[in-house]
Parts: sequence; structure tokens; C-alpha cells
Amino acid sequence: MSPTDRIRSPELLAKVMSAAEAAALIPVGANVGMSGFTGAGYPKAVPQALADRLAALHAAGDTSARIGLWTGASTAPELDGALAKADGIEMRLPYQSDPTCRALINAGKMHYTDMHLSHVAQFAWFGFLGKLDVAVVEVVAILPDGRLVPSTSVGNNKTWLDQADKIIIEVNELQSAGLEGMHDIYYGTEIPPHRKPIPMLHTGDRIGEPYLRCDPKKVVAVVRTSQADRNSVFAAPDAVSEQIAGHIMEFLQHEVKAGRLPPELLPLQSGVGNVANAVLSGLNQGPFENLTAFTEVLQDGMLEMLRSGKLSFASATALSLSPAATAEFNANIDFYRQRIVLRPQEISNHPELVRRLGVIAMNAMIEADLYGNVNSTHIMGSSIMNGIGGSGDFARNGYLSFFVTPSVAKGGAISCIVPMVSHVDHTEHDVQVIVTEQGLADLRGLAPTQRAKLIVERCAHPSFRPQLQDYIDRAARGAPGLHTPHLLSEALSWHTRFLETGHM
Amino acid sequence: MSPTDRIRSPELLAKVMSAAEAAALIPVGANVGMSGFTGAGYPKAVPQALADRLAALHAAGDTSARIGLWTGASTAPELDGALAKADGIEMRLPYQSDPTCRALINAGKMHYTDMHLSHVAQFAWFGFLGKLDVAVVEVVAILPDGRLVPSTSVGNNKTWLDQADKIIIEVNELQSAGLEGMHDIYYGTEIPPHRKPIPMLHTGDRIGEPYLRCDPKKVVAVVRTSQADRNSVFAAPDAVSEQIAGHIMEFLQHEVKAGRLPPELLPLQSGVGNVANAVLSGLNQGPFENLTAFTEVLQDGMLEMLRSGKLSFASATALSLSPAATAEFNANIDFYRQRIVLRPQEISNHPELVRRLGVIAMNAMIEADLYGNVNSTHIMGSSIMNGIGGSGDFARNGYLSFFVTPSVAKGGAISCIVPMVSHVDHTEHDVQVIVTEQGLADLRGLAPTQRAKLIVERCAHPSFRPQLQDYIDRAARGAPGLHTPHLLSEALSWHTRFLETGHM
Repeated sequence: MSPTDRIRSPELLAKVMSAAEAAALIPVGANVGMSGFTGAGYPKAVPQALADRLAALHAAGDTSARIGLWTGASTAPELDGALAKADGIEMRLPYQSDPTCRALINAGKMHYTDMHLSHVAQFAWFGFLGKLDVAVVEVVAILPDGRLVPSTSVGNNKTWLDQADKIIIEVNELQSAGLEGMHDIYYGTEIPPHRKPIPMLHTGDRIGEPYLRCDPKKVVAVVRTSQADRNSVFAAPDAVSEQIAGHIMEFLQHEVKAGRLPPELLPLQSGVGNVANAVLSGLNQGPFENLTAFTEVLQDGMLEMLRSGKLSFASATALSLSPAATAEFNANIDFYRQRIVLRPQEISNHPELVRRLGVIAMNAMIEADLYGNVNSTHIMGSSIMNGIGGSGDFARNGYLSFFVTPSVAKGGAISCIVPMVSHVDHTEHDVQVIVTEQGLADLRGLAPTQRAKLIVERCAHPSFRPQLQDYIDRAARGAPGLHTPHLLSEALSWHTRFLETGHM
Repeated sequence: MSPTDRIRSPELLAKVMSAAEAAALIPVGANVGMSGFTGAGYPKAVPQALADRLAALHAAGDTSARIGLWTGASTAPELDGALAKADGIEMRLPYQSDPTCRALINAGKMHYTDMHLSHVAQFAWFGFLGKLDVAVVEVVAILPDGRLVPSTSVGNNKTWLDQADKIIIEVNELQSAGLEGMHDIYYGTEIPPHRKPIPMLHTGDRIGEPYLRCDPKKVVAVVRTSQADRNSVFAAPDAVSEQIAGHIMEFLQHEVKAGRLPPELLPLQSGVGNVANAVLSGLNQGPFENLTAFTEVLQDGMLEMLRSGKLSFASATALSLSPAATAEFNANIDFYRQRIVLRPQEISNHPELVRRLGVIAMNAMIEADLYGNVNSTHIMGSSIMNGIGGSGDFARNGYLSFFVTPSVAKGGAISCIVPMVSHVDHTEHDVQVIVTEQGLADLRGLAPTQRAKLIVERCAHPSFRPQLQDYIDRAARGAPGLHTPHLLSEALSWHTRFLETGHM
């Protein structure tokens, strides 16, 4: 491929250099906003070159040489992994899922600020996160006037390009040129008091432009790459996931019958993972037609539903496909471009839009407690898993909010239904329906003690039910108040028992 | 006063009857939506008559005779108090602050569902709360065509009138006729997928109608009353409240200087109570001009600011004034009608609007923990105080979010900064600034361990600081992970110690 195929601006073509040369332009101590959302559209070369540079500085005795790393959400080994292995990250936000990164955070060696994904861009504009110094953004192509064709994720790229003093662009020639036209970048957001309504009424509405604006004067480097996204293999749903999906399907049918949902449902939001795939698979074989999605990430399952026609349109901020699905997507990109729009995450997750559209939110969790509080982020109260991501944006503002998990973990040693969660990400006020493979608890309108009864009966694993019921019974006698009866001296004892004995 | 002064519809004038006759029309077991928000605009006569009727049924052996009671927010002794004393409430939502009501809930004798105030109306339309059978709404007057002049609060009245099968209207002739024209009832809300942007750009925008629509055919009774709202005496701010207000004033000035707030700030939301009054008093004497308010409740302090000109406009869903302020308000109602608009609480608290306008949210709390999680509702984890109210609507979506409390309670026996809160209403993701009389902790962009350091240094009472620091130090050695280091076996021990010894 000739460089001019993808880099059509002569001004920017003149700034092509190696990843190492580009990485040298990032000041030590800078806050760097990088592209990337769920392993899609992240820069592939500059972060690794930067990691090498920081490692060399550390080896030379400058052990504090690090950056602040801001992204859309999680990325990949070439970004989070490489920089974490080099101990090159001082502060990470707003989401991560890399094993090395996580290990450093939980060792107290890296700061991590876990934020609602809809808050990130605006907090950057407000100046609440400090100055953004450098943007490193992967794109598919550069237009003659310097505008950018976004890649497989949009994330916070618009904000990084706007806010950073210096911009480094990676042009990834392996990403399909056919992505051009699939994006919708909304430039109508403002800082209060100048904000206006976001003019979107349906998931498919295009309210912006297909390109990212970019001031060519701020661009200090253009780096050519040709490397695939972190494409995870699509795991076929297991039995537990299928049971959870089955409960959700049954519930949705029941709600349609009761007149509380239209036959085509409402726009679907689905987290990432096994259960999400099982739900999508269930929907693809189910009775609902003309579905839509207003979500963060499009997985293989959504593509299947677009192909089958069950899903008529999908809005997201990123793709997260298996290698096989990527090949199929690229081969049929004209079909998908009519049915998919990729937006900035401030729009894909915007409370105004999630509430207006009436999104049906389905998110995984680590554990729930008797009263419907949900922990999405912490293992045993202290260690971060990934982060809250967009689950709060959707759960708080959606029409319906499901939280799902298998009822037990670690081969049955851990109950995912506990007396009190060890960390709260979604409060009792934001959790409507809890689902495990055991069943579904519809908590809408219920008081705490009513919720507890239902959650134990429907969702807890039978091996932990008697123990939970015992806690409820004794709390009803011994708690200092009976609105949310707790025995605080043992509310977290299930977690401490696990830490001590390896079993709850 | 002649009945026809206030009841100008002949059709509805014919339905005037006594409160006891009206109460007899409410079926036992019904879900009843009553007006009322923070002791303003609640029905004064029918709830008491209903309480008498239920008490008589209980005395006659029908001990299960109760209703479901839905309101805007808290009400008054004549409503919550009377029905609770008669043991007449099976299920209460979405907020309460009555001592008898609270005692029954915490004794496990009344169900209470604590909800975000912006969620209530839509959950009723969605059918998530069950069928609303009867509406009992206080108004100032009935127009010839049956439309209603709202009273001193709007709350959920629009939704109750729409959704109920039967309507009982209380016409309170003591409420100023001059309230007519102060309200703005927005009828543009819909159920998804038919929702549209809410066309409001500024706190003062009128987007609806001054009257409540009401189907006269559904009206089963009209009851005449002449009784004042529950007007609490305005307490002059104490020293602790003034110190908290001082820290907030200093912070706001700092943010203006840093360019993160405009000189006229952004629309203010302020909870109810001593600290709120002190902050308003500080603002009234402070350097900021042309302020606006987008809040739930207007207290005396806001009226003073409107009179002084510091506040140019205030939007709310209810008034909550002292007797003296009420008299002044009524005497100058033409002045206030140009500067105040009262809206339904689904609008006053709407996430879309709170985020668009960039509200500065200031809410009281019961306790905060080292990592910035906030408990607004529960005493020692089990007993409800009042409820979350609108604090979540504003804290999650506002531009800035303050949570305030004195650093200690019960004469120093309780630290309001604890290792782990005993109940979470606002997670670490939603809390930006914590303020006590000791100082202010600006948590924006900080990781958990950074937050802990700041909260102890700035906000904890000196008598508890060493103990908190000791927990931090030991958790740094003994926690199973160092992202949010906790020793789960003692994270709640401060609360259990208080329950056992009367001191944390």
C-alpha cells in the first residue's frame, strides 16, 4: 500500500516517522490520552515504543519516569500491557482489564481512577482531571484537509484530539478502508451553561459527522502501522450462561405480554462476555423482531443478529469481534455500514440518551447482596477487577436494568449472593432485576426485606441458601433496625472466611 | 370566602363533600398517590379522615386495612403522621421523614421503597409500581374547565392525576391565590420509544402550562380546607454550619479563579437544613452575582437571595418556608412569581436537565468513608433515616457534587468519617467533594488511596484522625489488595463498637 492511499494530507504525510521517534516526543510525566475501547482501535506501535523508552530511562536510574494514561476503556497487551510491564503508568483512567496493569494497581504501585465512562470526556473539558498533554490516536486514514477517518472504536478520541497540545496519529493500514462513513462524531456538546439538547430520537439517528476534526498544526507525528486489533476468540455460551439468558428471555416475553414493553422491546445494551453472548444468542433465536441496540460494544452476537435481520440497527462506540467475525465484517462492510453507527462514548453512554431511548441494560456483576446492592469492580472489597465501565450510565438511566452472574464462583467456594457486598458500585436504588442460572428476582418497587426474600429464593445457589436464610432470620431478631436488617459484626464475614479458608 | 371563588367549575362544585365522606371513597388496599413535597402542598383533611376510618376498621377487627402511600417526598403530621399512627400504611414510597412513619419502618411493620425522586413518575407510568388507584391532591383553585391551580408543591401530582382511576381534590383556601401562574407543568414527557428532548436551556425557561390537567369525570370528591403548610421555624446557622459554608465559598471562589466555573457560577441545588441555609447565607453575603438555582426545594435563604438580587431566578418543585417567610412570600407574591417557577419533580430532578444545565449539587450526608463512598440514608447500616431523595439525581449528573456533614455526631461519640460506610447511597464514582467543619477534600480525579489521605487530613475530626490513620496503615500491610485497602474483619467495627459501647 502506498502511504498516500491512507495519508492524503501532504502536510501530515511530511510528519511520518517511526514509532520510536514519535514516542520520543511524549514528555515524561505527561498526561496522554490514547485511543482504544475494549481492545479495538488502540494505537499499536507508539505505546510499545514509549514503554521501551521509559524502561530505558528506569534502567538509567530515572525510576520515576512515567505517564498518566487516559483511554476510552480497556485496550490490549500492546498498550496497557506494554506500558504496565515497563512500570510506565503513574495514573490510569477510566477502565482497564490488563493482567499486568491490574496486578500493579492491586500491589499499590499504580494509581487507578475508576469512572463512569459517560463522565470522562466532560471531566477532561471541565479541567477536573488536569491538563491533557498528548493524544495518541489510531485512525484508518487522514483526509486531504487533515480530518481523520476513525478506526474500530471512537471512545474519547474527539476529546483527546481537542484537548491535547500535541497529537500523534497512528494510521493502521490493516483496518478496513470501508469503515469510512460508519462513524457519527457529534460536535454539539458544550460546557455548561452553553449546553443544548442532544438531537437524537432513535438509535440510528446520525447527528454528527463521519470524521474526527484535527488541527494539523498540533500533529507532531504520524506513524504507519498494519496490525490487527486484539481479537478475542468467541466462546460458545456454556450451560450456566444459557440458563441465565433463558430467564431473561422469559422475563422479557412476560413484560411484553403485560404491556410493559413493546413487541420490538426497547434498545438493548449488553455488557461484554459469556452471558452477554448467550443472551444475544437467545434473542437471535427468540420471538422478538426489529430489535435495536444502543450499547457500548458490538460483539459477534450482534453481528449475527444484524445478519439474521432480528436486529435492525446497532449504535455503539466500539467493535469487539473475534478474528472470524472480523473477517466476515470486513467482507460485508457495506452491509454493516447501513446498520451500524459508531459514536463517541460520551454519546453512546449519555444519561440523557439512555433515559430518552429507554435502554434495556444488561450487565455482569461480581456479587449482589440480599438487599440488591451490586459490586461490579472489587474482589473481596480491596482488589480491583476491571472497573465500573458504562454499567452505571446504563443501569441508572435505562428503562430496565438487569445485573447477571452465575450464583457461585471458584467451583462453588464463593457465593455471588452475599449478606453484604464488599464494595458497592450500584446501589439498591439502581438495581431492578438480578439474574443467576438459578432464576430471576424482579426487585421493582420492593422494600429491602422483600428483596432479600426473593433474591435468596430465586437467585442464590442451593448450597448457600440455608446460610443466607439463617442470616436473614438472625438479623430479623438482632439487627438494630429492621428496614435493612444487618448484623454488622458478620455482614462481611463471608468474605473474611473465604480469605482465611478458601471457602465462604 | 365563597366556594365559587376557588371552585369555578360547576361540575366539580357539585362534588364538594366532607373529608370523611371523601375518605370513604378510598378502597382499603388501594395505592393512593398524594400531593406533598417537604411539608408543602400536601392534603390536610382527607388523610386524617382516612386514618380515622382505618383505625376504626382495625378496632372492628379488620387489622389488615391499610393503603399503599405514594407522594412527592416527605409530608407532614397531618398526612404521614396521621396514617402511620393509625398503622394505615402497608407500603410507603418514595421518601419520608415523619417520626412515627420512620419508627414503624425500622420496627419492620411498614414497607418502604426508597427511590431516586426523578425515577418515581416514570416508574408509575411504566407500571413498575403496580396500579395507582386514587389520587388525593391539594390545589389552590379549580378553573371553570376543571384544570387545577397547583399549590405550594408540584411533586408527582401530574402523574397521580393522570394515572389514578379516582381523584379527590382538596382546595386549600388558605394558600395564596397569587400562586396562580408560578407553576410550569410540562406535558411533553412520554414513555419510550416516544420520548423527545426536554426543551429547556436555562433554569428560568417555561416549557409547559401553569395548570394541572384533570379529567373531571375521574373526580369523585372535592374537599374544602383552610390550613397552613407544615412551616418549620428557620434555624439560624450554627458555628459548624457556618464553617462548612465557609469552606464551600472559598472553594467556589478558587474554582472561578482557576477558570473552572463562570463568575456567576452554575445553577445551584441545595438540600434542606442547617448547612444548606448557612451556604445560602454565605452566598447572599458573598462575591457572586446573578446566581440561579435549579433545585428541589426553596427555603427561606433562597427568598432572601431573590430579594437581595444575588439570585436572579429559582426553579424548584416545592417551597419549604418558615411562617415568617411564608407571610413575606404571600405579601410579595407578584415579585416572586417573576423569579420562581415550580415544576413537576420529574423535571426539577431530571438527569437530562441536571447534566445539561451543569448544576452545582450540595447535599447533606450521614457519613462518608475513607474512599469517598457516602451514606445518606441509614443509621448503623440497618435503620432508615429519611431516604435518598433527589441527592442521587443531582450528584450523579451535576457539574460539581458536594456532600457535607459535621465531622462528628452525638457529641463526639460518632465519627462521620469512617473506614467503611454502613450503607452506600452514593458510590466513589459519584462523589467529588466532601466537606466538614474541619475542611474540604477535593476528590476529583483521585485514586482511592489518594482520596483516603485527603479525607483524613481535611475532613475527619482530630479526635478520630489517629484511629483512621491507624486503619489506613494497617490496611496497607494487611489488606488482600491495595487498590482500596480494607480489613474486612474490622471495616464495620466502628459501627458495632458504637452499638455496643455508645462510642466509636
